[in-house]
Amino acid sequence: MRFGKVAVIGVGLIGGSFALALKRKRLCGSVVGAGRSRANLRLARRRGVIDAIAPDAARAARDADLVLVATPVSHFERIFSEIGGALKPAAVVTDAGSTKRDVVAAARKGLGVRVSQFVPAHPIAGAERSGAAAARADLFQGRRVILTPLAGNSRASVAAVEAAWRGCGARLGRMTPREHDAVLAAVSHLPHLLAYGLVSDIAGRRNAAQLFGFAAGGFRDFTRIASSHPEMWRDIAAANRDFLLSEVRGFEAVLRRIKSLLAKGDYRALEALFARARAAREKWLRGGYG
Amino acid sequence: MRFGKVAVIGVGLIGGSFALALKRKRLCGSVVGAGRSRANLRLARRRGVIDAIAPDAARAARDADLVLVATPVSHFERIFSEIGGALKPAAVVTDAGSTKRDVVAAARKGLGVRVSQFVPAHPIAGAERSGAAAARADLFQGRRVILTPLAGNSRASVAAVEAAWRGCGARLGRMTPREHDAVLAAVSHLPHLLAYGLVSDIAGRRNAAQLFGFAAGGFRDFTRIASSHPEMWRDIAAANRDFLLSEVRGFEAVLRRIKSLLAKGDYRALEALFARARAAREKWLRGGYG
Repeated sequence: MRFGKVAVIGVGLIGGSFALALKRKRLCGSVVGAGRSRANLRLARRRGVIDAIAPDAARAARDADLVLVATPVSHFERIFSEIGGALKPAAVVTDAGSTKRDVVAAARKGLGVRVSQFVPAHPIAGAERSGAAAARADLFQGRRVILTPLAGNSRASVAAVEAAWRGCGARLGRMTPREHDAVLAAVSHLPHLLAYGLVSDIAGRRNAAQLFGFAAGGFRDFTRIASSHPEMWRDIAAANRDFLLSEVRGFEAVLRRIKSLLAKGDYRALEALFARARAAREKWLRGGYG
Repeated sequence: MRFGKVAVIGVGLIGGSFALALKRKRLCGSVVGAGRSRANLRLARRRGVIDAIAPDAARAARDADLVLVATPVSHFERIFSEIGGALKPAAVVTDAGSTKRDVVAAARKGLGVRVSQFVPAHPIAGAERSGAAAARADLFQGRRVILTPLAGNSRASVAAVEAAWRGCGARLGRMTPREHDAVLAAVSHLPHLLAYGLVSDIAGRRNAAQLFGFAAGGFRDFTRIASSHPEMWRDIAAANRDFLLSEVRGFEAVLRRIKSLLAKGDYRALEALFARARAAREKWLRGGYG
């Protein structure tokens, strides 16, 4: 057993699945949970996701060998300052935030010198459902988790956090926080903005009912991410504003090019663009991009 | 039995599924198929999708009571002129083209006075797989089919074509060809351009492998339509250029608005936009838009 006591702050889909995965692999002794909703925590205990409920984050973190912070990112700084004084010197902390530069800044402020015990992580796993009710032991199986270790992390801390996420079945990647935010802006945050923008625009038109009435499967899949949680995505947009603005500008250039091909009637070039996209996507699906 | 002989020109996913659906409902006597690929036609006959193979479109249409043209739209004018002389006066013709103004123009040229026997249709059914091998009797079950009848159509012709598509399990809608093309530009053609544009842009970046390496389920669904057939989508872009250009311009305005909210840091307005989109999409999924 790698970890004696594990503390999960925020026992939702991600936090709960992390607990279940570690338990299934017998990588921990017991899991204590803390969070805002008593009902959710009681459900988590009933389901065996956690073994005990702590009254607050600090008491959950006390004596813990591993702490996962999996609340909305806007709560991180407060949680970090609450748990900072309770951490054992040998404990490691990780998180599940969707952006990393702001999380690292919150950890520096909240944890102070203890920030060296914090190894930031971003598990890239779907989040359409939420709460401990949705937690499952295999959520991270085969999924990417990006670690963005800090210069001050000890080798042992990074290894411990890696062991936890790998134990959940994840495939690990490493980046700097800045690189992480740039990559996610392109392949996740921009698509969310595009989907939100399209659906909100169509909903605002006079003939919205007719338009939705004839929207089909392609539209449903294209806009699935527009059903994501608005508050969470507001926070992501705020945290990653600079890279997101640059992605939006880049996409405006893509649209200008497509518009110009359409306006000129250069359908051969348009078909080539479509074919390039299809080939790249098929290569990606085949695992050709690694 | 409503139709004695049915002719299907282009026995792919759509044409083959139309044949299978009519057969299952016993709405036709026999189905004869015509098309470019002998191998595909033989496969269709072996699978019982069609009963006989005609050497060309004209001979398939001869003596037919109902003709479906389900080839790529770029072939329509030629096919219409080939079958025009072979049509019985009481026969009806329908199609499965994704755009309607160009299809109607091709029918006027190709069919001449016989155009009154043509009732245009667009079945909105997925087309990721193709060929007679992919055909299935339930492809149109519960799906929308938009009819865009012509001023010259007799009531009997429209009723016959409606009976055929309804017999396939489809839910029928009616629009003018112009209205059809405008609606589809918004909910289908624009999303295809956006998905193609995003994937092609990412594929062209220096760090494409890294970006695709960390793209996940949201990206996969958002870009599913970027795996659509480039030639087919080139034709759709060409046929619907004006409405598509106007949709691209409209979406540029949406992006400008999002960019300005980001630039100003107006995250409250951004969250409201996200929430509006999510609420509209949930309403749509619940059938709230009819």
